[in-house]
Amino acid sequence: MLVLSSPSGAGKTTISREILKREPAMTLSISATTRQPRPGEVEGKDYFFVTGERFSRMVEEEAFLEHARVFENRYGTPRAPVEAALSEGRDVLFDIDWQGTQQLRESARDDLVSVFILPPSMASLEERLRSRAQDSDEVVRQRMAKAADEMSHWAEYDYIVLNEKIADSVEKVSAILHAERLRLDRQSGLRDFVERLRGGED
Amino acid sequence: MLVLSSPSGAGKTTISREILKREPAMTLSISATTRQPRPGEVEGKDYFFVTGERFSRMVEEEAFLEHARVFENRYGTPRAPVEAALSEGRDVLFDIDWQGTQQLRESARDDLVSVFILPPSMASLEERLRSRAQDSDEVVRQRMAKAADEMSHWAEYDYIVLNEKIADSVEKVSAILHAERLRLDRQSGLRDFVERLRGGED
Repeated sequence: MLVLSSPSGAGKTTISREILKREPAMTLSISATTRQPRPGEVEGKDYFFVTGERFSRMVEEEAFLEHARVFENRYGTPRAPVEAALSEGRDVLFDIDWQGTQQLRESARDDLVSVFILPPSMASLEERLRSRAQDSDEVVRQRMAKAADEMSHWAEYDYIVLNEKIADSVEKVSAILHAERLRLDRQSGLRDFVERLRGGED
Repeated sequence: MLVLSSPSGAGKTTISREILKREPAMTLSISATTRQPRPGEVEGKDYFFVTGERFSRMVEEEAFLEHARVFENRYGTPRAPVEAALSEGRDVLFDIDWQGTQQLRESARDDLVSVFILPPSMASLEERLRSRAQDSDEVVRQRMAKAADEMSHWAEYDYIVLNEKIADSVEKVSAILHAERLRLDRQSGLRDFVERLRGGED
């Protein structure tokens, strides 16, 4: 389970997309949200768009691995697709905020690797938020405040990537993913292999 | 501090050399040994070749970070070059065995990343040991026994790389190195940067 978090506008979504292109066996966890789709957003690809009522029912049914409220909207990670992917031995990528990461960390423990993407500057962040155009000044201001809040949680993450160039950042997240797969506790399947090697039955 | 260990013949030295080519800022720790140089081995590049007497004096002077006996020979990691490189902020690569790694782990703690290289088979290991030609059958037998012993310590390492193709293994060790540099505790220099970002003084 690989979590990418960052203030919105720091490039996380672009990095996620590039990682998924390189890692066809990896599954992206699609969040459910009560907010309205933005122009171009696709149901089941960007988000599962649900009503507030449906969201509440899913919370009651414990259908979320984590869920949180951001401004007037609710966001949650549906449990079933994640558990299905993990049981098939597939890695899962999460594009969630610090609240989601904290909740996920409690349930996943050792199996979660978390990466925080930092923007090179606040100016670059604001620029990207403004270039989305579809957001009003008030929403941009809210998002900048949320970005500063999100960044206050950077030190809760396992790895920190300063996103100066997207291509470099993709390489860095990719290195983290590949290195983590080589960790002893994810290679326990080699135990029998080593025993056979040492026994000389090879 | 990046430690590579493996049974002799598993490809560790080739991998080390390739990593050093890619990472010009990285320093290789050169061990001191009391054994005789093999044909082609260069003083100060492959090893520091010292007498038993000199080795013992260095042990007394605490000039080694770690030292151990393997068969009739002694091996040790001189302390001064490692401390000099680390104080310059350079990463150091160690090509040492499980005994050396255990001692180093005690003194270095969090700053040590250890990788164990596994051979794809015992046959491949024996083949490589035999192809060195300069070793007698008896020495090869001794080394195969030592290889099995070395491998019994694989689960003490942070990362495991199964060396099927050298090029892939170099990529893997490289990913480990790059990922480890992105760990939060090695990025504490970003603390002030994030505070400035959040303060909006950027």
